[in-house]
Formats: sequence, structure tokens, C-alpha cells
Amino acid sequence: MVLKLLESHRCFGGYQQVYSHWSQSNQCEMKFAIYLPPGADNALVPALYWLSGLTCSEQNFITKAGAQRVASELGLAIIVSDTSPRGVHLPLSSESKQEGVGEGASFYIDATEKPWSDHYQMYRYVSHELPEFVAKHFPIDTSRVGIFGHSMGGHGALTIGLRNPERYRSLSAFAPICSLINATWGKQVLRAYLGEDQSCWQLYDACYLIETRGWPHGPILVDQGTADSFLEQQLKPELLVEACANSPVSLQLRTREQYDHGYYFIASFIEEHLRFHAACLK
Amino acid sequence: MVLKLLESHRCFGGYQQVYSHWSQSNQCEMKFAIYLPPGADNALVPALYWLSGLTCSEQNFITKAGAQRVASELGLAIIVSDTSPRGVHLPLSSESKQEGVGEGASFYIDATEKPWSDHYQMYRYVSHELPEFVAKHFPIDTSRVGIFGHSMGGHGALTIGLRNPERYRSLSAFAPICSLINATWGKQVLRAYLGEDQSCWQLYDACYLIETRGWPHGPILVDQGTADSFLEQQLKPELLVEACANSPVSLQLRTREQYDHGYYFIASFIEEHLRFHAACLK
Repeated sequence: MVLKLLESHRCFGGYQQVYSHWSQSNQCEMKFAIYLPPGADNALVPALYWLSGLTCSEQNFITKAGAQRVASELGLAIIVSDTSPRGVHLPLSSESKQEGVGEGASFYIDATEKPWSDHYQMYRYVSHELPEFVAKHFPIDTSRVGIFGHSMGGHGALTIGLRNPERYRSLSAFAPICSLINATWGKQVLRAYLGEDQSCWQLYDACYLIETRGWPHGPILVDQGTADSFLEQQLKPELLVEACANSPVSLQLRTREQYDHGYYFIASFIEEHLRFHAACLK
Repeated sequence: MVLKLLESHRCFGGYQQVYSHWSQSNQCEMKFAIYLPPGADNALVPALYWLSGLTCSEQNFITKAGAQRVASELGLAIIVSDTSPRGVHLPLSSESKQEGVGEGASFYIDATEKPWSDHYQMYRYVSHELPEFVAKHFPIDTSRVGIFGHSMGGHGALTIGLRNPERYRSLSAFAPICSLINATWGKQVLRAYLGEDQSCWQLYDACYLIETRGWPHGPILVDQGTADSFLEQQLKPELLVEACANSPVSLQLRTREQYDHGYYFIASFIEEHLRFHAACLK
């Protein structure tokens, strides 16, 4: 497992780096980004995993969110996955091209259906392969790890966090897809990657997981803008509120008046999320 | 003069917006970005003009520099110009395509040579047309305006600031081209836009302007990374040090070990520049 350094930039006293490596799960080369705070020179540091939204790569968060300043101050590493395999040249029907699946749109699912199943194993990649690979090569304190994300990546963070509470101790999201089964895009995505058996779909539905599995750590933090054009059809935070009300899981949902779905929204509140995670991981 | 709103995003309690308008100077539609801090709702606010480097548009700074957080806190508007006219379809020789001139590479010069002179009037656009247009449409306190920029835009900020001290009261730059005449790129750029008469070139050389005109306000702040790949051939901060030593102009040059030329460098120190300008504009 060779680690290839693609970028390294001094940033707020630490380093913002981008690497690629061969992914056994996805059977292709995958890129990821890592911010190493100043303290990582001589000690293990706690880490956050960030999952991005549709169409994003490992670049969007690291260039636009402005997270490094506070990560530097708090001594947090931040690892940013790509959102799907790339360049794997699957034999796609024109139908599947219209389904909102494929490159940049993995929805962090382990696909069981052709043509996706040979490469689209993003759930296991993000939840197991990437953290194990990162822990081998970087000074990460694996007992202090959190996960967060945006939109499709908010769905990814919630579902991966909820299914792996032994790996992740803190969990937050910006404008997440709260229930993939109930999102307008969701059914066609789930059908494309997982087929017709809806019992498999539930493992990728954050609300289902909250109600059936709970979350043994602190509260879950979610920020949601009111001017978000995906709010009513895709994100549906009211379902998350309902799921948490039906379970012992505590939700801190912050409604942000007039904020939209983009990175200006994320940048405006990233500091609060980083401080939330740092407090949980103390 | 119609102002067209292209983007508006709530950001740190204010608004990050992008507009286009017809530029009389450049004879084409030009885009610019403006960050309006919360206080701009009901009072005139001080403003900074940001000039970007080669290949950039009005987008790079507003998405990558992380300036809005501190601009919001300090109550500063930030206006970001594009780096050249766009879409004007000049009859270019293959030679001129190789000269590092054209779209994204105006060097903030008023061109006198064909084919550039019909459209490339970026000095007068940035120094006069844009500020006058902005002051008409936005709540800017025109007695409290500063200018700063990066690389080619650092050169732009220095030359435009030094030539218009009645308009700009504070001046800073990240990794600026300190003397365009002495930059490796410089002569071919100056020849393409201004022809062979080198007496015209001096008006676009920051070091020449410092030595001949001075700067009647406070010190000039410059940050420069030591791992910047353009440092020796293009930027030459030692010439700026020398020019300031030969004049009463005070320079605060901060050398940043291991930082490179990109936006991670800018983001790391943007807060210090904003606080510097805010103090000058008090």
C-alpha cells in the first residue's frame, strides 16, 4: 500500500496535504486530503473525517471551508475523502447516467448491483479502509475520532457514524440528507446501487439507524440554512427531529436564517462544529 | 450603468455577492465580487479592494481566502475585481498568446498597443471606474478605503495605491511582483501592452513609484513565503526593501518560512492584513 504525496502546503503552522493510494475496497486509486496541525510533529492528535456532497472531490472542503485555522488552534487533524471512485470506466446505460449516481455521487454506499458493485464500495472504504490506512501512516489518536459532512456527505457522516460508534465518538453535519429513503433522489439512488430489496436500504438511512440503533455518545450537531434550495425535497431535517424524538438520541439542530446550501454557509459555522467535536473528543 | 446581481450568499452575518456591469474603460461586461459586512445595512462602511493574481477571476479570493469572517467582525467591505476583460475576442497572433498576456493577465495596465488597447484598460478600471461605480451603488465610506492583492495583484495593489494616495489610505500585498520591469515576465508583458517606450513602463513599476513618489500614509505591509516558486525570478522582494530604504516609505516585510505562493498561504495570514488595514482606516 503505497502512499503518494500529491500536494503539501504549509497552512496555519501545519500542513495541508493531498495523497493518493490504491483502494482495495474500490479497486482503484483514491485521493484523500489531510490537514496535520502543528502538534502532529511530535504527538498523536485527534482526527475528524469530513465527507463532502455531490460532485465534490477531496478539494472542495480544504480550499473553501476555512477549517484549518481552528483545526490548527485545537490540534485536530482533518481527513477528507473523495466522494466516489474515479476513472473506473463502467459500462453505463444512458438511464443510469440520469439517476444521480456514479462519479461524485456514491452516497457512501457499498453497491451490490452491477455495474457499480466492482468499484463502488464507499461505505467500507470510508468507514474501515481509509481510517486504517491513515492510522498506519499518520500520527492519529484512533481513540479520539469524529466524523462530519455536508449534504450527501452529511448523510454519509450520519450513517457511517451511527453504524460505527466504536470508531467515531463525535458526529455532526451541515445540511445533511436526513433520510435517504425519503429524499426525492433517494429511491433511484438506492435502487441503482442496492437493487429492489428495501431491507438493504435501511442501513443507509440515518433516521432508521437513529431509531433502531441509537448513538451512545454525546448529542449530534446539525446546522441547516433556511434558504437552502434542497431543504424540502432532499434534506428533510424534520424527519431527523422526529427520529431523535422517538429515541434517546439528543439532537442539536441549529436553523440558520437566510443561509443557503453552499460553502459560504459551511465556512460561517465551521468553527462551531470544530469546537463541538474537540469538546466531545477531549 | 446597470448592475446585475449574479450571486448572493449569506456569509458570516453579511452577504457575499457577485455582480456584473458594463465597463466603459474596458468596453465589455465585467464581473466583481463584494462582501458586505453586517453593519452595511444601516451605515457607510470602510472598504478594501482586492486584486488577484494571474489566471484568477473574481471567484478565487472570495471562495479560498477566508476573509469574510474577520471582515464581518471589523465591519469592512471587500471588493474583488476580475483580473482582465473577458470574452472580447481580440485578433491574437500566436506570438502574443505565449507572452503571458491576455485573459487573466492584464497586470492592471492601461494598454496603448493593439490589439490590447481597445479593451485592456484595467488600470483606470480598477483605480477609477470600479470604485466610482461601487460608491454609487453600495454603502461605502470613500474616505476610508484600502487596497491589497496577491502576486500580479500585489503588483496591481502597490502600483495603483502608490499612484492614487488620495483614494487609498492603506496598502498591503501577499507575494507581490515588486518590480515589473525587473521580473522575468515583466519586459515581454510591458512591451506587449505599452510598446517600446520604456518611460511608460515606469508607471507600472512599484519600486520606481516608491522611490519617485513615496507614500504619504502608514507603512506598507507585505507577506512573502520562503517556499514560493516565483520568489527569485518574478517577485524579488529584495528590490522592494531597497526601494523603501532609498525613500521615506516604511515597509513591514514578513518572511514566512516554508509557505508557498498559493491560497493556503494567503488564508494563513489574511487576518493580519485585515486587522492592519482596519487599524490604518480608523
